[in-house]
Amino acid sequence: MRTDGRNFNELRKVTITPNASEYAEGSVLVEFGKTKVLCTASLDEHFPKWLQNTGQGWITAEYGMLPRSTHSRIKRDKAMNSGRTQEISRLIGRSLRAAVDLKALGEHQIIVDCDVIQADGGTRTASVTGGFVALALALNKLHKLSEIKSLPLKNYVSAISVGIKNDHPYLDLNYEEDSSIETDMNFVLTNKLEFVEIQGTAEGSTFSQKALLKMVEVATSGCLQLFQEQTKIVGTFFPLKLEI
Amino acid sequence: MRTDGRNFNELRKVTITPNASEYAEGSVLVEFGKTKVLCTASLDEHFPKWLQNTGQGWITAEYGMLPRSTHSRIKRDKAMNSGRTQEISRLIGRSLRAAVDLKALGEHQIIVDCDVIQADGGTRTASVTGGFVALALALNKLHKLSEIKSLPLKNYVSAISVGIKNDHPYLDLNYEEDSSIETDMNFVLTNKLEFVEIQGTAEGSTFSQKALLKMVEVATSGCLQLFQEQTKIVGTFFPLKLEI
Amino acid sequence: MRTDGRNFNELRKVTITPNASEYAEGSVLVEFGKTKVLCTASLDEHFPKWLQNTGQGWITAEYGMLPRSTHSRIKRDKAMNSGRTQEISRLIGRSLRAAVDLKALGEHQIIVDCDVIQADGGTRTASVTGGFVALALALNKLHKLSEIKSLPLKNYVSAISVGIKNDHPYLDLNYEEDSSIETDMNFVLTNKLEFVEIQGTAEGSTFSQKALLKMVEVATSGCLQLFQEQTKIVGTFFPLKLEI
Amino acid sequence: MRTDGRNFNELRKVTITPNASEYAEGSVLVEFGKTKVLCTASLDEHFPKWLQNTGQGWITAEYGMLPRSTHSRIKRDKAMNSGRTQEISRLIGRSLRAAVDLKALGEHQIIVDCDVIQADGGTRTASVTGGFVALALALNKLHKLSEIKSLPLKNYVSAISVGIKNDHPYLDLNYEEDSSIETDMNFVLTNKLEFVEIQGTAEGSTFSQKALLKMVEVATSGCLQLFQEQTKIVGTFFPLKLEI
Amino acid sequence: MRTDGRNFNELRKVTITPNASEYAEGSVLVEFGKTKVLCTASLDEHFPKWLQNTGQGWITAEYGMLPRSTHSRIKRDKAMNSGRTQEISRLIGRSLRAAVDLKALGEHQIIVDCDVIQADGGTRTASVTGGFVALALALNKLHKLSEIKSLPLKNYVSAISVGIKNDHPYLDLNYEEDSSIETDMNFVLTNKLEFVEIQGTAEGSTFSQKALLKMVEVATSGCLQLFQEQTKIVGTFFPLKLEI
Amino acid sequence: MRTDGRNFNELRKVTITPNASEYAEGSVLVEFGKTKVLCTASLDEHFPKWLQNTGQGWITAEYGMLPRSTHSRIKRDKAMNSGRTQEISRLIGRSLRAAVDLKALGEHQIIVDCDVIQADGGTRTASVTGGFVALALALNKLHKLSEIKSLPLKNYVSAISVGIKNDHPYLDLNYEEDSSIETDMNFVLTNKLEFVEIQGTAEGSTFSQKALLKMVEVATSGCLQLFQEQTKIVGTFFPLKLEI
Repeated sequence: MRTDGRNFNELRKVTITPNASEYAEGSVLVEFGKTKVLCTASLDEHFPKWLQNTGQGWITAEYGMLPRSTHSRIKRDKAMNSGRTQEISRLIGRSLRAAVDLKALGEHQIIVDCDVIQADGGTRTASVTGGFVALALALNKLHKLSEIKSLPLKNYVSAISVGIKNDHPYLDLNYEEDSSIETDMNFVLTNKLEFVEIQGTAEGSTFSQKALLKMVEVATSGCLQLFQEQTKIVGTFFPLKLEI
Repeated sequence: MRTDGRNFNELRKVTITPNASEYAEGSVLVEFGKTKVLCTASLDEHFPKWLQNTGQGWITAEYGMLPRSTHSRIKRDKAMNSGRTQEISRLIGRSLRAAVDLKALGEHQIIVDCDVIQADGGTRTASVTGGFVALALALNKLHKLSEIKSLPLKNYVSAISVGIKNDHPYLDLNYEEDSSIETDMNFVLTNKLEFVEIQGTAEGSTFSQKALLKMVEVATSGCLQLFQEQTKIVGTFFPLKLEI
Repeated sequence: MRTDGRNFNELRKVTITPNASEYAEGSVLVEFGKTKVLCTASLDEHFPKWLQNTGQGWITAEYGMLPRSTHSRIKRDKAMNSGRTQEISRLIGRSLRAAVDLKALGEHQIIVDCDVIQADGGTRTASVTGGFVALALALNKLHKLSEIKSLPLKNYVSAISVGIKNDHPYLDLNYEEDSSIETDMNFVLTNKLEFVEIQGTAEGSTFSQKALLKMVEVATSGCLQLFQEQTKIVGTFFPLKLEI
Repeated sequence: MRTDGRNFNELRKVTITPNASEYAEGSVLVEFGKTKVLCTASLDEHFPKWLQNTGQGWITAEYGMLPRSTHSRIKRDKAMNSGRTQEISRLIGRSLRAAVDLKALGEHQIIVDCDVIQADGGTRTASVTGGFVALALALNKLHKLSEIKSLPLKNYVSAISVGIKNDHPYLDLNYEEDSSIETDMNFVLTNKLEFVEIQGTAEGSTFSQKALLKMVEVATSGCLQLFQEQTKIVGTFFPLKLEI
Repeated sequence: MRTDGRNFNELRKVTITPNASEYAEGSVLVEFGKTKVLCTASLDEHFPKWLQNTGQGWITAEYGMLPRSTHSRIKRDKAMNSGRTQEISRLIGRSLRAAVDLKALGEHQIIVDCDVIQADGGTRTASVTGGFVALALALNKLHKLSEIKSLPLKNYVSAISVGIKNDHPYLDLNYEEDSSIETDMNFVLTNKLEFVEIQGTAEGSTFSQKALLKMVEVATSGCLQLFQEQTKIVGTFFPLKLEI
Repeated sequence: MRTDGRNFNELRKVTITPNASEYAEGSVLVEFGKTKVLCTASLDEHFPKWLQNTGQGWITAEYGMLPRSTHSRIKRDKAMNSGRTQEISRLIGRSLRAAVDLKALGEHQIIVDCDVIQADGGTRTASVTGGFVALALALNKLHKLSEIKSLPLKNYVSAISVGIKNDHPYLDLNYEEDSSIETDMNFVLTNKLEFVEIQGTAEGSTFSQKALLKMVEVATSGCLQLFQEQTKIVGTFFPLKLEI
């Protein structure tokens, strides 16, 4: 049992509230326990030069934290521009591109902004999970408005973290757990249960191949639950097909 | 009658939701119609050098906009660092300092972050109005925790905008009105109905002294209503005394 | 009587010396007592994108301080890029645009640089007052050179500060007064005696509506004197019409 | 067979030349085929504040690329400050800290600079592999000079990339392969064959759990060969113990 | 004869007006023809760390241009931060340090700001020549105020440019000449007629050793005249001794 | 005799190794004793706007230092962006332009990057000397590829430093000598033995005209030797013609 009473393979309460923004083409407020991230997907009026005349679109992401989203306030500059911030932005962007058929999107760029309102661990995995829904809503809207010919979605994408301690895996670490567990992996999966991203960091205590497999297993069960949450909103226009 | 059906001296629906953040010493989500600002007041662990050994505290503010808080997405850099952003941050800081007895605060600095989640005009006045409540909550908490000897509040402070068109004043402009009305004034008042700040800009159509007086009158009635909203939260520990 | 012997409604000695620069299309050195600001108006060879094909021109301003323009040296970065600097640049720009018929200007941009050579209070009001003359000289020159079809001036614009202490207003504060008087308002007026900008700040001691009116009255008398100074230079090609 | 004639599980020619710098406490020039990285380990005279009085040391890393280390020149700013650059710097730092007993290091900071002289794919894995040797040389030197009481090394650390295409893994991708293979994983391992870091990115074509296991197997064989290269230099003072 | 009627070895009209600033410890407005530079010497309240406890002082300089000091306006950023700006700042600093006995100065830092009000060629040489006088005035003032025990001046320092065309040298180039003459040298000399700095640039047309000697001769005669101008102000407390 | 046993007019061992980079159009590793600089010449795909439609090309240079190229590590930011760095970049660019017929080059820009791998004094003179060879190799390659009609070389260019102490000149100062000798001059010469650049700095101890002549003489002999080194590589396509 964990400090918050969860089982080792139990997610925190996950809520995805659609249409959290009046203006964005697609948006959600995603909550993993006390972690809250506002995800908005915006059609960018400026299309990147390097893709012009390729017939292909692009998805990019930007991650930010509000200064007092954390236990102690972080300076605005650091919250917005640190190496960690850029690293997470790039991860979200790569993950979301795996959900989309960029050719079918045509020459449009969508920017997904993931702004952390409150942080209690797992902000990057919440950003990918919520960002997918915001992106899907935006693509569906653009499709309905005939800005895009077909709905360019090809995969569901969700993400979850797993920690390991004394050979036991722990799903969806909160901040307190994240601080005491030294090995932390983030998995991004598709509905085909294939990997988009694997990021594992164990600077304090390295981990074995056996531990890796345990973490993969627990992460997979976590992402399956997240797909169920996502499909409540996205399922009406892009049904979930699990290939297990 | 206005496009949204309001009278010329009618505020939009104002809601102030306290404790909007798990971590901040004081926080609110303030809404003026569709405008939503998250205000958090944080005790800063770094006290500014220039005030050390003066026995006096300081209140400072930082204003920011989320990239898609607006009709069309603004770049993160611009949303956070523009001249306009700095100008508004400084206005909020000066306004909130007028609410506080800095000597009674002692050598502490409170940073009030006002982050615009959704913008529909009047973000700076919502920030001052909500920021006052977040600040008061933080000061009350620090007082209860005995970090501060006495509650260092001396005034209620609220803010509202007024426009003028064809000699008619309009209270609390939304974005659509703000775009079509060229004269826009922001008033920051205390519960003594004295001015903390007056900022009027009329680059397109200048205004007369008579118009100024009309705007003052309407702004005063608006701030009186805002004090009533603020006192619902702050009144239990800092009662509102109107001196009209 | 004040420390420098002036009456409460008396300006410092104001001097506006035209053609202070060999190269600028229009320029003045403006002095309010010991405050000295070099104002140059330059026709910008780059026209802003957002105004292209609108048939309308633009006036923008930049304010800066030399490092040792002040009592103690300020760092060059701070002198040039602080929030205060940007706030003042924006104020000057808005004020000067109120003097100009932007449609008549056509697709030209004028940049007015106001660089403080020596600062003794009132640098922003001196900048607006001198900036107007530099701008008018530039527009007249461009008109004579047939770069502009008609002279696109529509108003005189000048600015002055007023402080208040113990209910007494003080016109045109110098640095020493500005430091001891906590309420400081800046007024920008046209020759129709209408307001372009009102900026009042009273973080230390708030002020009443009655005080506001006193300050308006004194500011008006100050600006009337400034128009007389401006018309000595500008009057030959753009006569002053007072509408009181 | 691959375009350069290698087997799927064959490394490029790896050379680690020690003492590549006259001044650094430890240094190597590491080559993986045409990829060349200069790694220098420097004792930092400034010890980070947040570790003062903890009795613990720190290892940090900085990665950079020379402007013409790549096929087409990259701008100096981008080569030094991009999000990718920061991401890689952080990866190297975490990896190298896994090699060191930070308590035994005591209050010293070592900075490992990895500067890419020539890039042909795999610069981050070459940086970790060579950076370990440079770091070990520096720690040994400081130990001999009695700056450190005991040699604070606890693990060998090396890194390698693996790609996958049509279910076939490819070890140590060069630039040409990296451009055509969409799934690319980087593994950082210790001599206990435990993972320090796993980073897999597959934005174009996601990969299965089975493919993950294949990649792990090939990466392990690659790192075993790299440890053999490292121990030629490091083995005299820190013998390699493989725990397979 | 030159376009402005001067002889090849004739300076433009040089004027050095002392006490051009109300606040600076020492200041001049220096004019070489239409070139005008305001030089202020300020006692810095922050003494550089690297000189603490050495008993030695420091002189540093900063050069800047007002945006419209030139024929066509230059952007503020470029005017203040370009490579050229930094290069000239460093030249002025080195030149002025050659005038001062840094040990006798004791642990004080003087910052000499040279801000170009109007540029018509030779701004760096005017800055050195005027900067020396501003510095001398500041040192004399600090000496009189007993902040410094002895007057720490050891040399007069002045600077002049020389161009060469068809083997003929031209002293003190103005902007028009500077644009058409491709070889431009700047000489900084002491009253012992020794060199502090020599900077010659001839990217378009290289020059011979013979030409160098001609330029040295003409520069020497120019500096002799500049010393005569400087000594009118500095001579009362630091007499000029020529050692020819 | 000097600390390293050289005669006063003796260069350190100079080695120029061509084709040091796999990718650059031209490249060398140049060594002056322990000083090592990697010089790469790249055809820039972006041609500067200000030269478009002039029919003329451009040569520019960028100088950088690796963080641990020096005795004690310098921060990456400082190594790349300091005033000194910019000053040297500009010097190299001007020097190399003197070698090239920019009209014959046509509308191409070549960027020469000089990155210091190891610094032991004389990095700027090594950069010019090696940069010339890298540039010549690039121009020759572009000529052979018919990107350029004729080989646009007009001069050999090399550079050397000379110090002076007690009236004795010392050629090609190493770091140790450079630190103890206060007068340091850098000469850039062509094969016609004409000057491209002369930069002499003597802030500590000024120097006489006689000393200048001695330094010129020694520098000339040094550059003659450097031309011999350069011609070993460049001579096959651009023979050295000495005009003494």
